[in-house]
Amino acid sequence: YSDSYPADDSMWTYFTAVAGQDGEVDAEELQRCLTQSGISGTYAPFSLETCRIMIAMLDRDYTGKMGFNEFKELWAALTAWKQNFLTIDQDQSGSVEHHELSQAIALMGYRLSPQTLAAIVKRYSKNGRIFFDDYVACCVKLRALTDFFRRRDHLQQGIVNFMYEDFLQGTMTI
Amino acid sequence: YSDSYPADDSMWTYFTAVAGQDGEVDAEELQRCLTQSGISGTYAPFSLETCRIMIAMLDRDYTGKMGFNEFKELWAALTAWKQNFLTIDQDQSGSVEHHELSQAIALMGYRLSPQTLAAIVKRYSKNGRIFFDDYVACCVKLRALTDFFRRRDHLQQGIVNFMYEDFLQGTMTI
Ligand SMILES: [Ca+2]
Ligand SMILES: [Ca+2]
Ligand SMILES: [Ca+2]
Repeated sequence: YSDSYPADDSMWTYFTAVAGQDGEVDAEELQRCLTQSGISGTYAPFSLETCRIMIAMLDRDYTGKMGFNEFKELWAALTAWKQNFLTIDQDQSGSVEHHELSQAIALMGYRLSPQTLAAIVKRYSKNGRIFFDDYVACCVKLRALTDFFRRRDHLQQGIVNFMYEDFLQGTMTI
Repeated sequence: YSDSYPADDSMWTYFTAVAGQDGEVDAEELQRCLTQSGISGTYAPFSLETCRIMIAMLDRDYTGKMGFNEFKELWAALTAWKQNFLTIDQDQSGSVEHHELSQAIALMGYRLSPQTLAAIVKRYSKNGRIFFDDYVACCVKLRALTDFFRRRDHLQQGIVNFMYEDFLQGTMTI
């Protein structure tokens, strides 16, 4: 095994410890591991719900679990989102506000109307504040739903013909 | 006001108490109210996440809040889902198992492939058990996403042409 992953031995050791016997990480294991890793810093640990959508984001075969490559991919995304959040939350209050999340989403390259941005911000805030866990949930869903859409947008025209069941399978699990 | 709602005075009184000054119920208010109402019985209270998607299910103008009519509609749906859950959970263990949720979803009238059902069940269970809160979250999302799809399926053919932004607005908030 170590031959296949020469560059990240310690991450592989970490992953196998987290994954346990089945060699894959489910939502409960991921929540425990992210809490212990300290990646949330002084923020509240990730909710099980957020961990579930993190797995769904990368789980294209719908097993509800994550292998090592997906684990590394998630880790990289989380590190980037945390850095973004720290940058946005300039007063270090532990939360960002409405217009700041809109700006962050735009900076990530999503071109959305002000109405869509407002609806999204409302959905992920508590009393006007967006905390780290919800911020990450929002980033995960945006990326996962966009990926899901793009994989079907073969002509890259921003329009997709969805069959009901395919639509449901993607959106219910994300 | 009482003239408009003659048949459900007590519900109206209850609603205004919950809604507070703005006359509408947001996710935090809904969570408090559902916890106090005892509708979860001996089950764990609804998570804020589930309350958010309950509101999103009925919130077609994307304000993130719920008026009295929506409140009544939600109440009726919750009562029915609770009854379903009690029926499915025959051993009263407080959770239902994989095949039972699949059956329940089929009984609600959704015709989904075994693969889609399996993916959904995996997403809403914890260690193979589906608890009431997640069961309701699953019912809410199924209904909300199906409504969202149907409103665009003008010819009722089970196929919808989605623009990216419309797709995202509906699925990010649900
Ligand atoms: Ca495992
Ligand atoms: Ca702040
Ligand atoms: Ca049971």
